[in-house]
Amino acid sequence: MTKERAYFEAAALKEHGHWCPDHVPEVYHFDRTMSLTGMRYLEPPHIILRKGLIAGIEYPLLAEHMSEYMARTLFCTSLLYHSTTEHKRGVAEFCGNIEMCRLTEQVVFSDPYKVSQHNRWTSPYLDADAEAAREDNDLKLEIAELKSKFCERAQALVHGDLHTSSVMVTQDSTQVIDSEFAFYGPMGFDVGAFLGNLFLSFFSQDGHANQGNDRKAYKEWILQTIEETWNLFRQKFVSLWNEHKNGSGEAYLPAIYNNDVLLELVQRKFMKDLFHDTLGFGAAKMIRRIVGVAHVEDFESITDASKRADCERQALNFARMLLKERRKFEGISEVVSLVQKSN
Amino acid sequence: MTKERAYFEAAALKEHGHWCPDHVPEVYHFDRTMSLTGMRYLEPPHIILRKGLIAGIEYPLLAEHMSEYMARTLFCTSLLYHSTTEHKRGVAEFCGNIEMCRLTEQVVFSDPYKVSQHNRWTSPYLDADAEAAREDNDLKLEIAELKSKFCERAQALVHGDLHTSSVMVTQDSTQVIDSEFAFYGPMGFDVGAFLGNLFLSFFSQDGHANQGNDRKAYKEWILQTIEETWNLFRQKFVSLWNEHKNGSGEAYLPAIYNNDVLLELVQRKFMKDLFHDTLGFGAAKMIRRIVGVAHVEDFESITDASKRADCERQALNFARMLLKERRKFEGISEVVSLVQKSN
Repeated sequence: MTKERAYFEAAALKEHGHWCPDHVPEVYHFDRTMSLTGMRYLEPPHIILRKGLIAGIEYPLLAEHMSEYMARTLFCTSLLYHSTTEHKRGVAEFCGNIEMCRLTEQVVFSDPYKVSQHNRWTSPYLDADAEAAREDNDLKLEIAELKSKFCERAQALVHGDLHTSSVMVTQDSTQVIDSEFAFYGPMGFDVGAFLGNLFLSFFSQDGHANQGNDRKAYKEWILQTIEETWNLFRQKFVSLWNEHKNGSGEAYLPAIYNNDVLLELVQRKFMKDLFHDTLGFGAAKMIRRIVGVAHVEDFESITDASKRADCERQALNFARMLLKERRKFEGISEVVSLVQKSN
Repeated sequence: MTKERAYFEAAALKEHGHWCPDHVPEVYHFDRTMSLTGMRYLEPPHIILRKGLIAGIEYPLLAEHMSEYMARTLFCTSLLYHSTTEHKRGVAEFCGNIEMCRLTEQVVFSDPYKVSQHNRWTSPYLDADAEAAREDNDLKLEIAELKSKFCERAQALVHGDLHTSSVMVTQDSTQVIDSEFAFYGPMGFDVGAFLGNLFLSFFSQDGHANQGNDRKAYKEWILQTIEETWNLFRQKFVSLWNEHKNGSGEAYLPAIYNNDVLLELVQRKFMKDLFHDTLGFGAAKMIRRIVGVAHVEDFESITDASKRADCERQALNFARMLLKERRKFEGISEVVSLVQKSN
């Protein structure tokens, strides 16, 4: 871990912790010279969420907590809450976290779409699937648009790597860690990362089914959690907006936007765009975990390669469709229904 | 002029001058402590373009030169040419030019859409028109989207104030000055500013017509210049892209995008989005010059208030339509035809 990396991780933990102390471990001390971070110890029975999902454990508060974390950190570090002056100061600082952004660009937006020595997949089963993804022009057109947003759009201080291994959980606690990829980027990158990784978990479940547990109920719980997370996120985000509509957020000045009809129009448009970004980035995060360099334990722990490939193929096909067709979906229930029908 | 302002003006002149020396006056020396800029003297007969347009003078090379300036400066300071590392360094530096960005936010994206002591218009003739603009919810929805792009999207190092008083001309020279508003923003903000100000000039011409010169031919020349500027810009921009498609630009890596079909798809999408941004920002720049704080000499020099109001109303109605309906236009000739038919 480089020194820069430690600095930005601590800086983001502190900023996000300020806005959402319930779901971000407290940083007690950071020493830049020593790259030393003193922070809360997440005591047992906290475990990595991904491991819990592989084990088939339900977390009844997960959607509530993660929607709270995402709504608060994304809203409060955006121009919906900040003045442009504060915002540009933050953007300039986190421009320094360049190496981590470059890594994301490469592994999420580039490698899966070209021949790369870093790529791997469950071969030979997925050879044709990986090639098809690399040769899908429509897919590459869409991933280019998302890459531009990732590189150019400083919408909020995003976590930047919000998959299910960046979250530690118990039955009543949810803590987000590992924010070393944080920078000012598009909000949908965080929401998409989390939902995309839940979808990966969903598609991996058949590989973990056995005679004692067919995982059917658990798969339903995952889909329900995806749906609730987005819907609660949307609701909490809009509530924060309404609560602060007379505040110092620069994006929608009260003197212009505080009439009920217009505010609703503006919020609906904002949330629709954010939803489509979420689906796009979520799909991109799924694809890269199946045909890119870094895979996820959800699939990797399925020892039967043929069975694993079947799960991965379903996830890959779903993600390719989602990336290309995301603008057709009006709400998360449509996406979930589609998965239910086809799975 | 603050010291910061002088610094960013000189920095942008140097950067843009590096990419397009033919149309940016050379900076010989800048001293930050003294805020002293030594730069090329633009000798007579160079005059401010806006004054030439009011006088009805044709500049046969204007479209050629301005399209060259915009294509080169915007392309070469974007991720189509740069690595992310260079890009983020530039973005961070120009985040410091915050006061100028805040001024633009206020006068372009906010004041015209609310009651503000700064606003003025040709009263009483345009009282109802100004009010209608302030109460047009669809217009305010669209201006919010453009403001977000202005504040969040670091696409290229834009001039930031590219109206017809920021350009000095002779019959064979075109020089862009006054870049103190420069920052990393959306490309369409520059192209739109220039075309929007040409449209303002067009709509002002009836106010300058007299028995000796009905300005009809001149109006046609302006429309032709608008059309040529966009079409040449598009052509030059895509040529630069093709020329550098194997370079270090981070946005579209050769290993992914260098197949002829895909590259054309990607370029067509990029230029369509940029065209719509251009129309939107251009319209916003027009509106603010009619009902906002700072007006333009094109209209102000029409002494008959009633005649001036007629010209301004036409421009305002056109701009409001353009801002709301910009996505319906496929090319600049459609926009120009519409103006020709309705004027």
